[in-house]
Amino acid sequence: MDVTVWNEYRHEREDEDVAAIYPDGIHAALADVFADDHEVETATLEQPEHGLTEDRLERTDVLLWWGHEAHDEVEDEIVDRVQERVLEGMGLIVLHSGHYSKPFKRLMGTSCSLQWREDGGTERLWVVDPGHPIVDGIGESIELPETEMYGEPFDVPEPDRLVFTSWFEGGEVFRSGCCYRRGSGRIFYFRPGHETYPIYENEEIQQVLSNAVEWAAPTEGGVRSFGERK
Amino acid sequence: MDVTVWNEYRHEREDEDVAAIYPDGIHAALADVFADDHEVETATLEQPEHGLTEDRLERTDVLLWWGHEAHDEVEDEIVDRVQERVLEGMGLIVLHSGHYSKPFKRLMGTSCSLQWREDGGTERLWVVDPGHPIVDGIGESIELPETEMYGEPFDVPEPDRLVFTSWFEGGEVFRSGCCYRRGSGRIFYFRPGHETYPIYENEEIQQVLSNAVEWAAPTEGGVRSFGERK
Amino acid sequence: MDVTVWNEYRHEREDEDVAAIYPDGIHAALADVFADDHEVETATLEQPEHGLTEDRLERTDVLLWWGHEAHDEVEDEIVDRVQERVLEGMGLIVLHSGHYSKPFKRLMGTSCSLQWREDGGTERLWVVDPGHPIVDGIGESIELPETEMYGEPFDVPEPDRLVFTSWFEGGEVFRSGCCYRRGSGRIFYFRPGHETYPIYENEEIQQVLSNAVEWAAPTEGGVRSFGERK
Amino acid sequence: MDVTVWNEYRHEREDEDVAAIYPDGIHAALADVFADDHEVETATLEQPEHGLTEDRLERTDVLLWWGHEAHDEVEDEIVDRVQERVLEGMGLIVLHSGHYSKPFKRLMGTSCSLQWREDGGTERLWVVDPGHPIVDGIGESIELPETEMYGEPFDVPEPDRLVFTSWFEGGEVFRSGCCYRRGSGRIFYFRPGHETYPIYENEEIQQVLSNAVEWAAPTEGGVRSFGERK
Repeated sequence: MDVTVWNEYRHEREDEDVAAIYPDGIHAALADVFADDHEVETATLEQPEHGLTEDRLERTDVLLWWGHEAHDEVEDEIVDRVQERVLEGMGLIVLHSGHYSKPFKRLMGTSCSLQWREDGGTERLWVVDPGHPIVDGIGESIELPETEMYGEPFDVPEPDRLVFTSWFEGGEVFRSGCCYRRGSGRIFYFRPGHETYPIYENEEIQQVLSNAVEWAAPTEGGVRSFGERK
Repeated sequence: MDVTVWNEYRHEREDEDVAAIYPDGIHAALADVFADDHEVETATLEQPEHGLTEDRLERTDVLLWWGHEAHDEVEDEIVDRVQERVLEGMGLIVLHSGHYSKPFKRLMGTSCSLQWREDGGTERLWVVDPGHPIVDGIGESIELPETEMYGEPFDVPEPDRLVFTSWFEGGEVFRSGCCYRRGSGRIFYFRPGHETYPIYENEEIQQVLSNAVEWAAPTEGGVRSFGERK
Repeated sequence: MDVTVWNEYRHEREDEDVAAIYPDGIHAALADVFADDHEVETATLEQPEHGLTEDRLERTDVLLWWGHEAHDEVEDEIVDRVQERVLEGMGLIVLHSGHYSKPFKRLMGTSCSLQWREDGGTERLWVVDPGHPIVDGIGESIELPETEMYGEPFDVPEPDRLVFTSWFEGGEVFRSGCCYRRGSGRIFYFRPGHETYPIYENEEIQQVLSNAVEWAAPTEGGVRSFGERK
Repeated sequence: MDVTVWNEYRHEREDEDVAAIYPDGIHAALADVFADDHEVETATLEQPEHGLTEDRLERTDVLLWWGHEAHDEVEDEIVDRVQERVLEGMGLIVLHSGHYSKPFKRLMGTSCSLQWREDGGTERLWVVDPGHPIVDGIGESIELPETEMYGEPFDVPEPDRLVFTSWFEGGEVFRSGCCYRRGSGRIFYFRPGHETYPIYENEEIQQVLSNAVEWAAPTEGGVRSFGERK
């Protein structure tokens, strides 16, 4: 399968603490997760067309998206392109602060707002749908000792399947693993991944990401034809 | 509106601690919640036909159900009757340990199992769907200082709308307010209400219950006709 | 309730056949449907801000949208405004060719494409959810003797509730009454209403529209607060 | 994969016209569809335990169910067993008149009633979800020249995914391909298959059935554990 990991790649170059965790960028750490099983490429904001040329997207089966401080710098034309490819069947996995990214907001149709607090508390991601392939091999819950908090309400459409719900030490909950279908494409929003914690080195998180890539892969499907019918 | 509150009415007669909280039974405490706004009747397990005669159900708009230790004593014939009335449009509000009641399991088609711990810890019910009429007048969350814990996984069909998700002091989460439609009937499962805590005296919980009764009321609807079509 | 009927108002001024059916515009015909029960205002494309000023939208409970040939002329800023109000709770009823309108596409996140044929054949709208308030007082189906055909696939997210499915004489089907929740707002897409047939004079269609306005009305709800949580 | 085809096997032995189409029973015809790709066994009503021993169900990945005139003869104990296995992850494909079978009604929680007419008219099954793996390789629609009609309303819970909607020559529509998840199991209701028409010899119907078996296969999933939590 062809996997493309997109990252805005700013924090890692601007903030020493982040660079210490992800010296080659979050995209490189994520690419490593899939490298054994898939063809993986990376793309970043500052590349021409943000690295998401038509050709690149055309051959991408699943796109992962990490962004945080530069959402507004993503060109609408590229957002159109990502949306169109998802509707045609490309999988999309949106990570952490990507809830506010243009492609996710475009595909959800809502504000995608939430509550947050950067307190370094514990998060426990509970599996609420143990029959879902995204949790293959995962136990009852995944514990992250230090992370940023995201809290409800989360302004997204009711998920087709809710897979994870997070418990936070500070007293909040969050729907942290949400599955959607839009057109022929599968979309998974997965909360973990704040830039100041080495979340993507956690083996269970890596397992979920690997499962999600498999789940989000395009299927052959039937015929998507529109327009005048004679 | 005609509201019927059903209670198995055992704990209150067998356990002094429960009797101290609900001296006239949980059904009486719940009936008080609706008495100003609706015609309210109560029914209990040991009445003939468990108090749910055809006539009584026929005139009931919304039925509330509380049961815990005697689920198996409910006759299947009465369960058939409740199911049929829900499909015709009667609202059903299932409370707390009623998750294991026969009518709820019948209408869900699943085991309705969950995890639990009687630890008297704090529960915070977060509103995850602030646009839902069941939370009219409710703030971001409702806090219950002492309660039994229910944890995921909760083996129910994906709710049509998830309204509340609970955070528990001991580290768990639970989908504690779940809306369903079955046939023409509206079903709301609402978690709070353990017999050893005075949960139904909490004003916010009472507000949710009042809202839920309004939400679950039958609507006129269209035509439910089945069978051979000439 | 305050109802605003929006119409692009082009066909009626450019095409004699359409003008013969809707001499004062489709918006006027629709406004008449609600005039006895609600405060109704109309708004059209060529008014300043398309008639949808912040003040107007602020006081609108339910907005109806009819557009066809001038979708692209609707300013994105106004689309932002409509979307935001829907997320805050305003109801939105999208009619017929409005499936391709900017507000609907924005809120759905998909292409909203479909198949179509202008053949003047019969359409029968079957009620597939007879318990839904949108079909209060409606029989098993509504028959429209002459209309344009819309056929599947319809590229929208899976509806929260599918209320109508249309049968077309020419051999097609279409999900013709689709309910959604986005943020706190209720959205109803309703297919009937081609400009060259007097669909909005049909009493059953008028009944559905009246029901839909009641259904889409904002509820009080809980608290929609986002951002940093201390 | 291990596939078990269950058939009540009555019509084929009692009615010459049916026997002419399915001389070895509908189960044998269905088994042939999967024989090249899977381990297939058949089971029928009159076998001990209806052929569905604990051992047999334990090793079944996907169960197909065809029944019509003898639904009531299926023992509740076997229905319990099928339900439990589905909740644990076994796929279930319910065919045609199986909408009224005990396992389907048990898992749906509704009456599963519908309208019907045995008129030998044409059915066209439209794909309404062209991105679904159940329609891999299928065109816009499948046409069956002669069949029994099933019409709405169909009293089932709103499907998780609606894949097919049927158009009938006589003027009706029907949600003819419905996907559900219950517990860890996947359920597909597929309408075609009346005993007096050779529907299961249609290659497109066979393709859908093959796809459905793949889709319904159990996945590894996470942990389904319930009960007291220490």
